[in-house]
Amino acid sequence: MARKRSEKARPKLTAIEMAQQQREISISEFFTKNRHLLGFDNPRRALLTTVKEAVDNSLDACEEAGILPEVAVRIEQTDGEDRFRVRVRDNGPGIVKAQIPRIFGKLLYGSKFHRLKMSRGQQGIGISAAGMYGHLTTGKPVTITSKTGPKQPAHHYQVIINTKDNEPKILREDIAEWDGEQGTEVEIELEGTFQRGLWSVDEYLEQTATANPHVTLRYKAPDGKERVFERATKVLPQEPREIKPHPYGIELGTLIKMLHETRSRTLQTCLQNDFCRVSRRVALEICQKAGVYENARPKRIAQQEADRLLTAIRGTKLMKPPMDCISPIGKELMEAGMRQQFEADFYSSVTRSPAVYRGIPFLIEAGIAYGGKVKESGPAKLMRFANRVPLLYNTGACAITHAVTRLNWRQYSVEQSNGSLPTGPLLVFVHMASPWVPFTSESKEAIAPYPEIEKEIVLAVQECTRGLRRFLSRKRRRAEEERKRDYIQKYIPHIGEALQEILEFSDAERDKVIGKLTDLLEKSRKD
Amino acid sequence: MARKRSEKARPKLTAIEMAQQQREISISEFFTKNRHLLGFDNPRRALLTTVKEAVDNSLDACEEAGILPEVAVRIEQTDGEDRFRVRVRDNGPGIVKAQIPRIFGKLLYGSKFHRLKMSRGQQGIGISAAGMYGHLTTGKPVTITSKTGPKQPAHHYQVIINTKDNEPKILREDIAEWDGEQGTEVEIELEGTFQRGLWSVDEYLEQTATANPHVTLRYKAPDGKERVFERATKVLPQEPREIKPHPYGIELGTLIKMLHETRSRTLQTCLQNDFCRVSRRVALEICQKAGVYENARPKRIAQQEADRLLTAIRGTKLMKPPMDCISPIGKELMEAGMRQQFEADFYSSVTRSPAVYRGIPFLIEAGIAYGGKVKESGPAKLMRFANRVPLLYNTGACAITHAVTRLNWRQYSVEQSNGSLPTGPLLVFVHMASPWVPFTSESKEAIAPYPEIEKEIVLAVQECTRGLRRFLSRKRRRAEEERKRDYIQKYIPHIGEALQEILEFSDAERDKVIGKLTDLLEKSRKD
Repeated sequence: MARKRSEKARPKLTAIEMAQQQREISISEFFTKNRHLLGFDNPRRALLTTVKEAVDNSLDACEEAGILPEVAVRIEQTDGEDRFRVRVRDNGPGIVKAQIPRIFGKLLYGSKFHRLKMSRGQQGIGISAAGMYGHLTTGKPVTITSKTGPKQPAHHYQVIINTKDNEPKILREDIAEWDGEQGTEVEIELEGTFQRGLWSVDEYLEQTATANPHVTLRYKAPDGKERVFERATKVLPQEPREIKPHPYGIELGTLIKMLHETRSRTLQTCLQNDFCRVSRRVALEICQKAGVYENARPKRIAQQEADRLLTAIRGTKLMKPPMDCISPIGKELMEAGMRQQFEADFYSSVTRSPAVYRGIPFLIEAGIAYGGKVKESGPAKLMRFANRVPLLYNTGACAITHAVTRLNWRQYSVEQSNGSLPTGPLLVFVHMASPWVPFTSESKEAIAPYPEIEKEIVLAVQECTRGLRRFLSRKRRRAEEERKRDYIQKYIPHIGEALQEILEFSDAERDKVIGKLTDLLEKSRKD
Repeated sequence: MARKRSEKARPKLTAIEMAQQQREISISEFFTKNRHLLGFDNPRRALLTTVKEAVDNSLDACEEAGILPEVAVRIEQTDGEDRFRVRVRDNGPGIVKAQIPRIFGKLLYGSKFHRLKMSRGQQGIGISAAGMYGHLTTGKPVTITSKTGPKQPAHHYQVIINTKDNEPKILREDIAEWDGEQGTEVEIELEGTFQRGLWSVDEYLEQTATANPHVTLRYKAPDGKERVFERATKVLPQEPREIKPHPYGIELGTLIKMLHETRSRTLQTCLQNDFCRVSRRVALEICQKAGVYENARPKRIAQQEADRLLTAIRGTKLMKPPMDCISPIGKELMEAGMRQQFEADFYSSVTRSPAVYRGIPFLIEAGIAYGGKVKESGPAKLMRFANRVPLLYNTGACAITHAVTRLNWRQYSVEQSNGSLPTGPLLVFVHMASPWVPFTSESKEAIAPYPEIEKEIVLAVQECTRGLRRFLSRKRRRAEEERKRDYIQKYIPHIGEALQEILEFSDAERDKVIGKLTDLLEKSRKD
């Protein structure tokens, strides 16, 4: 093709000049420029995101160590109107000295990304991103104090991220005092805006308490007001167990990578050991279907054979993945949480059995509360949770919102205009629990609308609404009965008196007739 | 705080055991697991995203080299129903041999991230992510052929990303035949779904042609059908120039970093050289306001001084950033593009002057077309563009959608229900041009709703609608006149005949009266 030029003289570059501009981009530089992806797009949200990341980490750590969590959040105003110091302290297991700088001073570092086990954190970004944002806006480092046991010293660090190479830079390192046996305190100073109400730290803590009844939260706001959310149960949720990937939904590239990296010496044992729900017998069946020798060395499997294995896997009936990598809130605790926070006429909740998307198990729980003091008017209150963490922002992008909107609420006599949330005194609570929740962005505020996930949410909420329909029609029937009984009580005496006049009954005869008529009509009303 | 246990025996971890699980996460692993963030959440979108990333790169390269772009897209079905080979070939400047593996086999690598100059790509993720997805789903590498000039050989590569360390792995490397002087061809095989209609490759190419009238696009679909979009102009858009950051919106952390990394020897020259729109005089003014010595060594500026400098900058009147880092489509070409694609009764377009968000200049252009054959019914057609690239997905999350929805269209007599897009025969075209567009996710399908950006979009569309209001009220007045004239023509003759009968006029007298009455009524109608 010929090379054409526009007529105007213009700066133009050759391939060699372009090559000189090519550079590697560090992940910290990337997220500094794209900090709205991490939930730092405005000062109000920045404050919430910082609290959220720190509290989520504390809760994860306590639960993994089998400790009933006690977390204290303290927000103080520092210089100027728009600068705050956020301090979050827990009674968790603490962090060993060597890990502190990397956990708080490096993006994409953590223990939760590479395993399949439900936890609040999963990306290795959150808390270090909050520290990075704090440093960007106030110039202050993240301060961490952590103690791992009664006989250990408390280590104190001041850390920033070097955005050029995404490595921690330690500004200070010493031994500090710590009042207690163990735990971690993190302190971040940042530019933010403090507000109450919708999408506030208050709302996040309230909802966290609802979905985590085993947690005690203490909160001191910048205005000095204190709130304590006491735990409602001393029973920790069942600690989820790490599982292996389920063969359904595994992609060719991942399968090939697993075959190349396995420690198993034969294809059959690889399938059996590296995946869940593949028995010796099932592994053999897959190999035979694919026409690949079951004792082949996994590393030697060619791409086309892997391709056939994948087809065979997809055509083999397998059990759903084990549920113990997920720790649901549970029907009872979910309902108890709603009852504690909202006085309603009707409650219903359900924990579905686990389903799978892209080879990853997940479980949907839903609850609804209706009537009473739930809400005066307007659209229903939607409470969204992922792995027990409340989701406050990006409502419109979330699979939960999509599913609840898609449901036809009018068939349950709940008002709803097309394509909107239902309206009325209604609370809808949805929880997705999974070792890997697919969020729509790194800020983890909305669940990506995978069809498998949306379907499960629809089914869960539908199950809850079935009871609601019964409740509402019973309520309507009762109101109807009430109305009819009113008629009977109102008119029968008049009829009695009229008959007395016409037929010249005595008062006793009249009352007998009234009694008989009432019985008769009551009976016919009930039929 | 005391350590409490739940009664059940449960696996629990100590800080040391937790530390052993901490690991670095490679950016490729991160995006493999989070591939929905990159636009690969379903097979249909995956195909579109792959085409889009390759075409956007081709257009950027051609324009930077001052070459009128000719891009050929070819999609073929390979084995099975759901596997496609996407091939995109351009007449651009080519890529030097040493850069090929990293550009296509490493995430976060590129020439566009570190500079402030409008281009389609900006993250250094797109094309390598498409290759990664292809490899994940089909096991096939990315194939690249590139030639940088008539005397250079064409280099041929097959590359994959090693996701463990995000480095390219070269599977094949040799010299190939190339029919032409220079250019690049990239080939990716992937799992996908081919569909026409909304959100299809067709729609992306159509809209690309509309917003890029200097581009020739050739497209061969899997069903063998070919389409050619010929360029409408031989004039390349003005090549944008790289600018320095504007002081408004710069954050403390960024300012400190710039002061530490500058080559300037004094604070005053640093402000003057490293930022745009800061003259010697303005630099001095800022230093004086902040109470910092203007000849201080930038590296020695303490954090509190930097803090005062920032306050001084924000309180100093500065010119808007220079516009030449942005290359708008322009009012005329935008309207011509709409005219070519849509037959309407009314067109209007506007290119606003640049504004700033977070220290980054941006510019909004908008156009509307109304009536004619634009659309039969339903919500308005919204065409969203960022740096001349059509945005097809994530409509609801986009600042453009928010702004167009927020506008009160009823005041222009366009139907609209609350909180929705207007309805009727209406096309709304919005283009944001900026050296850094803040997208809501790495898939770059929606613009993050920064208030400054939304405001500019509202103003741009409002400017367009002003003409629409005039047009629509003129149209309504004309219709009204038409109706009145109809009345006159319809009833006057009857009145004439009635008068003739009553007053026994001759036919000539009758016609005279009719004529006079008509004139009189016509005159009063016009007053």
